[in-house]
Amino acid sequence: MARPKATPDQGAPVIILATPQLGENIGKAARVMHNFGLGELRLAAPRDGWPNTKAVSAAAGADVVLGHARVFETLRDALADLHTVYATSSRPRDMVKLVTTPKCAMEEIRDKITRGLRCGVVFGGERSGLSNEEVVQVHRIIRIPVNPAFTSLNLAQAVGLISYEWHRSTVDQPPTTLDVKGSRTANGAELSQLFEHLEEELDNSGFLFPPEKRPTMVRNIRNFFMRAELTEQEVRTLRGIVTALSHGRPSRTR
Amino acid sequence: MARPKATPDQGAPVIILATPQLGENIGKAARVMHNFGLGELRLAAPRDGWPNTKAVSAAAGADVVLGHARVFETLRDALADLHTVYATSSRPRDMVKLVTTPKCAMEEIRDKITRGLRCGVVFGGERSGLSNEEVVQVHRIIRIPVNPAFTSLNLAQAVGLISYEWHRSTVDQPPTTLDVKGSRTANGAELSQLFEHLEEELDNSGFLFPPEKRPTMVRNIRNFFMRAELTEQEVRTLRGIVTALSHGRPSRTR
Repeated sequence: MARPKATPDQGAPVIILATPQLGENIGKAARVMHNFGLGELRLAAPRDGWPNTKAVSAAAGADVVLGHARVFETLRDALADLHTVYATSSRPRDMVKLVTTPKCAMEEIRDKITRGLRCGVVFGGERSGLSNEEVVQVHRIIRIPVNPAFTSLNLAQAVGLISYEWHRSTVDQPPTTLDVKGSRTANGAELSQLFEHLEEELDNSGFLFPPEKRPTMVRNIRNFFMRAELTEQEVRTLRGIVTALSHGRPSRTR
Repeated sequence: MARPKATPDQGAPVIILATPQLGENIGKAARVMHNFGLGELRLAAPRDGWPNTKAVSAAAGADVVLGHARVFETLRDALADLHTVYATSSRPRDMVKLVTTPKCAMEEIRDKITRGLRCGVVFGGERSGLSNEEVVQVHRIIRIPVNPAFTSLNLAQAVGLISYEWHRSTVDQPPTTLDVKGSRTANGAELSQLFEHLEEELDNSGFLFPPEKRPTMVRNIRNFFMRAELTEQEVRTLRGIVTALSHGRPSRTR
């Protein structure tokens, strides 16, 4: 149903964790990156060094991301080869910066990558997020909209939301669809046959009575089935039910 | 910048965790719900009972959500008072179900809540997600688009993505804005004064030479500053820089 516009690992933004503290969060970030097709993780001055066994267990199999993570001494080093860098922040900064939404940022990055530019998104450490000195090194801020009464977003969750927005920008997913599996949606003729079959049996049973109310009753019943968006298989099942119920009735019809 | 359309806890969907296993994930789910203004958490048959100390520490202060969580023996009980229920799933089901996106689902829920209906979103347990017997109890499926090569999404991350989509549907956030803080964006007159000041000094210095290239050089310089969307404060700073640099030059101008 979701048609990929690009393969997952081709030309996605780099995720940079600035002074991350907990291995568990690094691992969970790698896991959710892989969930959403992001492959390149960089760590700037991780507190507990690298490699980190807690990161491995939290990655839950996303070794392809974690195993290729690169470690840098400073954020500046980690950003050296990137052309456009975004920082995520949920709180206002006392700086003049372009501020954008996660969705817009991912659309901008897609456009930049198409034009051959390398892009990255920086996430601050668990304790206090990004310092002003770190924010100065990025071009734009992505402000994740949060409840102003509780703004402290878990690091891996923040990476998850951005990764989700990235992946969403890569797929055309129709808004709402009926997943019909082995069957197909019923056509008008099949529905008409069902309705006529049902109404005939309801007439036989005396249900559609009195006559002046019949049109409204029929319309209401048809509307109910129409709203359900029946499949061809379900129409056959329903006709079987109508037959079974009406043949099982002892008195009037037989 | 983000203007709330509704207060966080008013009329949001209920989050239901079906047979959750790890207290840590329950706590992290509560935390991210609170981040995005969702207040009502229900647990259907949590494996390790309730209350759970690991959930409390993982909630990181989201006690207002965790402390009000309600526990039910079965999923059916947890859904009894809800009118429309969605289940999240990243894999196709062998069932005829309406399938929608996270964004559409949250927009639908907002509309239903406005009409007085109570809505919920169900998340399956860590080990194997929702069983078919559980999925039958919901009206629609929310399919979170994931990398088909790595579909296993952490429970708290899944709750995070849905909560994020809910919150996003409650705020009007402009796509990209310049956060100018104490200052304001410079107007045309201020920019013209800066450009004339700069170009006068550049003429004095001999930089804008030869004369036939001057118009193009001036245009390129102005474009650069225009693209930066300067603030009034930055214009004053730049004029100070121009003055300082040109006065510091010993030979030509003085």
